[in-house]
Amino acid sequence: MPDHAIIIDTDPGIDDAVAIFTALASPEIEVLGLTTVGGNVPVAQTTRNGRAIVALAGRHAVPVLQGCGRPLILDPQTAETVHGSDGLADLDLAVPDGPAAAAHAVDWIVETVAGRPAGSVTLCALGPLTNVAAALVRAPDLAERLAGIVLMGGSVFVGGNTTAVAEFNMAVDPHAADIVFRSGAALTMVPLDCTHKALMTNRWIEQIDRLGTPVGHAVAAMLRFYQRFDMERYAFAGGPLHDPNVIAYLLKPDLYAVRRCHVAVEITSPLTRGMTVTDWWGRFAGAPNCGVVHDVDADGFFDLIAQRLADL
Amino acid sequence: MPDHAIIIDTDPGIDDAVAIFTALASPEIEVLGLTTVGGNVPVAQTTRNGRAIVALAGRHAVPVLQGCGRPLILDPQTAETVHGSDGLADLDLAVPDGPAAAAHAVDWIVETVAGRPAGSVTLCALGPLTNVAAALVRAPDLAERLAGIVLMGGSVFVGGNTTAVAEFNMAVDPHAADIVFRSGAALTMVPLDCTHKALMTNRWIEQIDRLGTPVGHAVAAMLRFYQRFDMERYAFAGGPLHDPNVIAYLLKPDLYAVRRCHVAVEITSPLTRGMTVTDWWGRFAGAPNCGVVHDVDADGFFDLIAQRLADL
Amino acid sequence: MPDHAIIIDTDPGIDDAVAIFTALASPEIEVLGLTTVGGNVPVAQTTRNGRAIVALAGRHAVPVLQGCGRPLILDPQTAETVHGSDGLADLDLAVPDGPAAAAHAVDWIVETVAGRPAGSVTLCALGPLTNVAAALVRAPDLAERLAGIVLMGGSVFVGGNTTAVAEFNMAVDPHAADIVFRSGAALTMVPLDCTHKALMTNRWIEQIDRLGTPVGHAVAAMLRFYQRFDMERYAFAGGPLHDPNVIAYLLKPDLYAVRRCHVAVEITSPLTRGMTVTDWWGRFAGAPNCGVVHDVDADGFFDLIAQRLADL
Amino acid sequence: MPDHAIIIDTDPGIDDAVAIFTALASPEIEVLGLTTVGGNVPVAQTTRNGRAIVALAGRHAVPVLQGCGRPLILDPQTAETVHGSDGLADLDLAVPDGPAAAAHAVDWIVETVAGRPAGSVTLCALGPLTNVAAALVRAPDLAERLAGIVLMGGSVFVGGNTTAVAEFNMAVDPHAADIVFRSGAALTMVPLDCTHKALMTNRWIEQIDRLGTPVGHAVAAMLRFYQRFDMERYAFAGGPLHDPNVIAYLLKPDLYAVRRCHVAVEITSPLTRGMTVTDWWGRFAGAPNCGVVHDVDADGFFDLIAQRLADL
Repeated sequence: MPDHAIIIDTDPGIDDAVAIFTALASPEIEVLGLTTVGGNVPVAQTTRNGRAIVALAGRHAVPVLQGCGRPLILDPQTAETVHGSDGLADLDLAVPDGPAAAAHAVDWIVETVAGRPAGSVTLCALGPLTNVAAALVRAPDLAERLAGIVLMGGSVFVGGNTTAVAEFNMAVDPHAADIVFRSGAALTMVPLDCTHKALMTNRWIEQIDRLGTPVGHAVAAMLRFYQRFDMERYAFAGGPLHDPNVIAYLLKPDLYAVRRCHVAVEITSPLTRGMTVTDWWGRFAGAPNCGVVHDVDADGFFDLIAQRLADL
Repeated sequence: MPDHAIIIDTDPGIDDAVAIFTALASPEIEVLGLTTVGGNVPVAQTTRNGRAIVALAGRHAVPVLQGCGRPLILDPQTAETVHGSDGLADLDLAVPDGPAAAAHAVDWIVETVAGRPAGSVTLCALGPLTNVAAALVRAPDLAERLAGIVLMGGSVFVGGNTTAVAEFNMAVDPHAADIVFRSGAALTMVPLDCTHKALMTNRWIEQIDRLGTPVGHAVAAMLRFYQRFDMERYAFAGGPLHDPNVIAYLLKPDLYAVRRCHVAVEITSPLTRGMTVTDWWGRFAGAPNCGVVHDVDADGFFDLIAQRLADL
Repeated sequence: MPDHAIIIDTDPGIDDAVAIFTALASPEIEVLGLTTVGGNVPVAQTTRNGRAIVALAGRHAVPVLQGCGRPLILDPQTAETVHGSDGLADLDLAVPDGPAAAAHAVDWIVETVAGRPAGSVTLCALGPLTNVAAALVRAPDLAERLAGIVLMGGSVFVGGNTTAVAEFNMAVDPHAADIVFRSGAALTMVPLDCTHKALMTNRWIEQIDRLGTPVGHAVAAMLRFYQRFDMERYAFAGGPLHDPNVIAYLLKPDLYAVRRCHVAVEITSPLTRGMTVTDWWGRFAGAPNCGVVHDVDADGFFDLIAQRLADL
Repeated sequence: MPDHAIIIDTDPGIDDAVAIFTALASPEIEVLGLTTVGGNVPVAQTTRNGRAIVALAGRHAVPVLQGCGRPLILDPQTAETVHGSDGLADLDLAVPDGPAAAAHAVDWIVETVAGRPAGSVTLCALGPLTNVAAALVRAPDLAERLAGIVLMGGSVFVGGNTTAVAEFNMAVDPHAADIVFRSGAALTMVPLDCTHKALMTNRWIEQIDRLGTPVGHAVAAMLRFYQRFDMERYAFAGGPLHDPNVIAYLLKPDLYAVRRCHVAVEITSPLTRGMTVTDWWGRFAGAPNCGVVHDVDADGFFDLIAQRLADL
């Protein structure tokens, strides 16, 4: 029996795709479904991408539910320059025929969690938190019914990647993030502080490519496209592989260092909006509401991902 | 055939109750259902109240759907001092046996509107706009499928009743209001500027009491409780009967004066949050997004309400 | 002996000019000096205008001190469309030869008030409050040494004239206004609510013109230019004569109705910035900090101004 | 002839004292005067402290001018827990008899800079920026008359020491800081990122003590008191010696690494107020307005300070 039953709320997105493949390949994890949200690309496309990813992994039974197409309050913003115009490096992955699932992601999250034992489902959030917040507004008791929410997003000490201080997922829908961080759910945040310590090398991408599988080839092609961006922007030695850290954290928490802190999301000022204001020293805010994943054994992480992708 | 098919989103609340009775009594209006929201009292109680109101009116077939129990971002605030600890003057109205409807108000709004011809349903919003905003976030095309949204709330030139500048429904969930006012829906706002011109007299309440019906007695008892509050606060000659103006506006628009303006809801500053910033002179903001109902023929309004209540 | 020793802090401006003329003509008032601030036009021009006004009134001994040229935090904005490119209807009034006063307005205010008995000087503020705030920051005890500050600005129930909710003087430097309103000084605010009830008629302007004096002709010419603006904007029957109400209030307080309220200036939100949030009903904020002048005997006001202008 | 003519605007404060001693001991620097501001302790005390420091250094001719006692907009906050109830470790340093200087710091800054060649005076700001901002509001051309402003304050990547994201000097008067950062002056900021890399050791403090001079003993006593605080808070190996870095940067810029960035000060949101939002990567904001000193040769720094203190 798997250790974790998870819902992946996601806006694929190249690193989302790698995260989803990793989860689907892991026997410790039961993926109950993907719920899509607008983020890296608009939601109609993230839904198509979610379906294509599941199909490529040969896991057609995993449902893909379309969710919110726009942030709660702010105007949408996307990141095609990072992920390609279709969000997956324009590889033209095949989308299954047939209609998408009829249910709305927000309803499906609420009902799926309500229909299973309390504390048995983990929500893995890889994109802007609009769906998660909308579900919490509709059903506040969701916060305590979940085993927890593990989310990629935010930044503590390394600045932002969308504004000087805000990470993309937080910047796109800070109001949703604020709802999530104040929901009372058991939260784990994987911020840029962690993911910027897990930089891909060309050698590792080659290794994925040499798996020789359709998934391996697709992932390698996507990652080559993807890693240019941050390498150019930050003069990094390689691109950070953000979202798969959420799945790897579930699989092997020992790869990560976590500190419990109070985290508040700034929603008021245009200058700092979307910042995850973290009371790292425990001096300036209330009780911790979040585990902040601040370090990673990068070699262990990349080995784990490569290993699991090999199983698809 | 009725002129209007409406959904009443409501937080009853005494003036909500009178609005609902008026709608149920009006042949021009088909009430598709009530959706409840936390506001004057918490949502579990507004749901009970909605069910009690429908039962007292003998209209058991009208569904009552429970919605959101808390504002999107802010902490809840209620108004028991105005409406009584149960929201209906503590009259202990009978709530029907049997379970409440299972669907969530937000889903039900989205599906009900989707299931009927475009432009055929009017949403009458009498409370904080949390449900309406949550529905618009889930299904943005709701904005154009609706015939319109007529809402009680806001203030242009008369100040607020919850802060110096904010009316209760807007103050409770300004973020939801912001979503609604920027949704593109055909909006009509009935602010305090209108409702403060429709003050009840004791004579009029007596007239309702003398209808001799259960509804008449209940309404009269509620209104006697209710009107103390604003009379004391503002030294008004009588209490304003806010919410029924929304229904009366549908029934007899000629009773009202409307001006189209750009209205923006303030969400940033604690000092002015919930204010409906209205470009009355058309000089300072963009194109009008809202009909602002700023005047009422009060005699005609009270005659209409009394007349309709007599039919229940 | 005059009843009032005043400093006029001003950004002339046509209505400022009328206020200054009125003060200079009034035996009840000793004008200690004019201090100029950027507002209707930039400060170099308001200083020139102040000197020209004093000269035209034949009161060359009244010093004119130049003050701050820009708001504390915001970028400057001016109102040449209302007051003409030179701020005085482009009448080309003669500016005295010789250098302007060397002292800075802020220093001069502080030192002048410090050099006279406590409680003996009234500061009449007709423009943005930058100088007054800068003086209060430098010398906080100024607040209690002043007899009081009477200022034209703000709005309670009538909306703004620069944004939908903010009056010009407050909109230009809301941060300065915030400092003034929280300074503890004895404040009297003359908002648009008052000044919009004192609309000029052509007949009254004619009466000023027929005084046959240089001041009378200049004032009449300025006012003809000036009143177009608000008449067009608000479809008013005549232009409001804002600033002279400050002087008239000192001369004949019986012409005015005043209510003590708590007034806070909004500085945070771009949407509502500069609003004078007034707790008119005494329900929503702390103890009153300001007398709000909300009504005027307009006939009495215009008679008074005409009478005094006749004496110059 | 000295290389630098400086004004030290300061709120001593233990590290301020060390900075002032260092400047007074340095032949490359002419200290034109100290201007005091409320910060670590109230301004009356920072003025007494400034006078005591100058006296202890035997430099009685250096004038000490008292400045602003409160931030522009916010309520004052002080830091007696760090600096002692008198701001200098309660050592009871002797304050010279005789009256303090009569001029106000703000005026004195403006006039001193105006009275010397353009580009010849550097303003070293060691406390909240209230005086500097007030001077810039009074005399905007000060910005370009100064050789530059070198200020201790802010934080880029290391979080705050007063809130989770704001350093003390910025947190105390963010509005003043905003005025300074947008003034156009040639700015150099020495943030916590630099000063947290210059941690004192007990051995170094011993070395200062062994100078055997009154200044050496006083500085050592103060620093022993001072360094407890951050060592406890951050589990640092030693306390950071913030303010002397400003003087050391003037003396030996080669000890420091500087990057030119756009820095904006957050003034809107209570959560992030006082943060120095720095566009480190040059991707998210306008042209650089500030040199950000982000690294220091700590050994070189401590050697320099010790050397100079030995000369007093």
